Amino acid sequence: MATPTTSHKPSPERIFGALNAFQGTAALKTAIELDIFTAIADGADQASSIAQRVSAAERGVRILCDYLTIQKFLTKSDGRYALTQESAIFLNRHSPAYMGTLANFLASDEAKRNFDALTETVKNGGTSVAQGDNTKPNDQIWVNFAKSMAPLAAVSAAFIADLASAKEGKACKVLDIAAGHGMFGITIAKQNPNAQITAADWAPVLAVAKENALAAGVADRFTLRPGSAFEADLGDGYDFVLLTNIFHHFDMPTCEKLMRRVHAALKPGGKAITLEFVPNEDRITPPTAAAFSMIMLAGTDSGDAYTLSEYERMFRNAGFAKTTLHPVPDMPQQVLLSEK
Amino acid sequence: MATPTTSHKPSPERIFGALNAFQGTAALKTAIELDIFTAIADGADQASSIAQRVSAAERGVRILCDYLTIQKFLTKSDGRYALTQESAIFLNRHSPAYMGTLANFLASDEAKRNFDALTETVKNGGTSVAQGDNTKPNDQIWVNFAKSMAPLAAVSAAFIADLASAKEGKACKVLDIAAGHGMFGITIAKQNPNAQITAADWAPVLAVAKENALAAGVADRFTLRPGSAFEADLGDGYDFVLLTNIFHHFDMPTCEKLMRRVHAALKPGGKAITLEFVPNEDRITPPTAAAFSMIMLAGTDSGDAYTLSEYERMFRNAGFAKTTLHPVPDMPQQVLLSEK
Repeated sequence: MATPTTSHKPSPERIFGALNAFQGTAALKTAIELDIFTAIADGADQASSIAQRVSAAERGVRILCDYLTIQKFLTKSDGRYALTQESAIFLNRHSPAYMGTLANFLASDEAKRNFDALTETVKNGGTSVAQGDNTKPNDQIWVNFAKSMAPLAAVSAAFIADLASAKEGKACKVLDIAAGHGMFGITIAKQNPNAQITAADWAPVLAVAKENALAAGVADRFTLRPGSAFEADLGDGYDFVLLTNIFHHFDMPTCEKLMRRVHAALKPGGKAITLEFVPNEDRITPPTAAAFSMIMLAGTDSGDAYTLSEYERMFRNAGFAKTTLHPVPDMPQQVLLSEK
Repeated sequence: MATPTTSHKPSPERIFGALNAFQGTAALKTAIELDIFTAIADGADQASSIAQRVSAAERGVRILCDYLTIQKFLTKSDGRYALTQESAIFLNRHSPAYMGTLANFLASDEAKRNFDALTETVKNGGTSVAQGDNTKPNDQIWVNFAKSMAPLAAVSAAFIADLASAKEGKACKVLDIAAGHGMFGITIAKQNPNAQITAADWAPVLAVAKENALAAGVADRFTLRPGSAFEADLGDGYDFVLLTNIFHHFDMPTCEKLMRRVHAALKPGGKAITLEFVPNEDRITPPTAAAFSMIMLAGTDSGDAYTLSEYERMFRNAGFAKTTLHPVPDMPQQVLLSEK
């Protein structure tokens, strides 16, 4: 039944806002591409000086910076722009926590194309434009992921390294499935000089991970297992298997299939460590984890953001004894720890 | 100078949110296209029954409705969806205030294309993809505007009719420039049986306005003046000239040129009534009016959301005695009243 439930004064302004929301993505992506935030960090603070620094027109920069101020990515006072604390930390290219590369993946042409076809996709119940079966290689997208998304991994990679007791320094074997940029395994290897990392992913993606392992000084303990996680020989005797942002691409039977392979690769007492968007059973909270389902609808045949009870059941069916939930502090993702 | 100015705990979640914001536009547009809100208004309240009603897949509808709940366009309780008050008023097709058609214009392929090219546009200082000189005809876009955007005009059209003292019923001549759907002039004609409306716009756009005038029963007092507002014979002796959402398309000299034509068309003591997005002098408040500049950057050569002082100066230069500002209640736009 349709029951109006809110009580504030009705206005179409939020509808207007949602229909215009795509502009916010474009504006932030453009500001990152032109490196507006770095220009301001470096001292340019008016439309004219910022425009000169980023080689753009003053009218364009003035309207863009005003818009970024309205969106709270800048402040403006007496015609002078300044960075917010968030922009200074995450959008200034000189900052160690720079995350501007995220735009290349989250707001890529492919991602936008998936959402341009959303009506057809909702009718179909699965993506109508992408290669939605992610058990098959799709190198261009996943190389882009590996090159773009590493900065977002820092906090959760440190959290996972703690769960793997990396700082204790015990000898251990870690398998990182769908390694991508490799930063989850690399973080463990940096903290634990006795950790051996095996990274599994498509070969062109592993080339990016290998570069990152070299840059981190852990390449001598970083082995590659190229190919499908469903078909390649993954090895065995692992203390930990990392499964970061992979299950959401598949339906439940496919997830269980992978979980069984993980179970076989772990040594007795070993642990599967899953990083995921895990919504509550209502599937509408917490908002970022729950909303992630929509990206899977738009881009996959049958992926989803699964709940804890769904993960518990799948891991149990695959032979795991127990699965526990560990929210990553200050991040929208959760970690699941599943014991063999 | 870059000075961090906010004090809350820094997190990349808002950056993540902005880079994903385009999904919100796509989701609402899809829900409108599939008529999800009307299906719920008509009694379907679970993913399965809504899916059946709108001929879409249950997985697609379930994920879409959860997402719309997260975005506060629906509520969900025990797996059953309901409309919010706003959705019941503005997104149920049976509601007299239905605004679903807005999606066709605000989130059109043309609008998205303009924003896909935003980086190049900021560099250029003007649109890099659209036909950005709106003094030339661009029928496909403006016919789409006329067909899609009438529902948004209701509140401001009633406000303008009051400013034109329509209910007093005095004989008066009204010229509606860039009439579009024609609802501003039509609203005056409905309230004042002695008002004669002249609608000016490109001929294919006026066909839409004429249909609306017929439907409103005022076609006998609704005359068309097809062609460019800068070149066509507009007539003279008008009590009121309506200028709704037109000046923002042009640079200031072009606005003044049109204002001079309006001045010539008004009778002594006549008034120009302008409906616009008028930001404060800081150009960042109020947010919706100020953010409108970005749409003009993306889609025009040199349009803008002008401030009150800019409008005052332009109208004065065009010969007007005085310009006053009148915010439209509960709407993001403002009305300017300029006396000859």
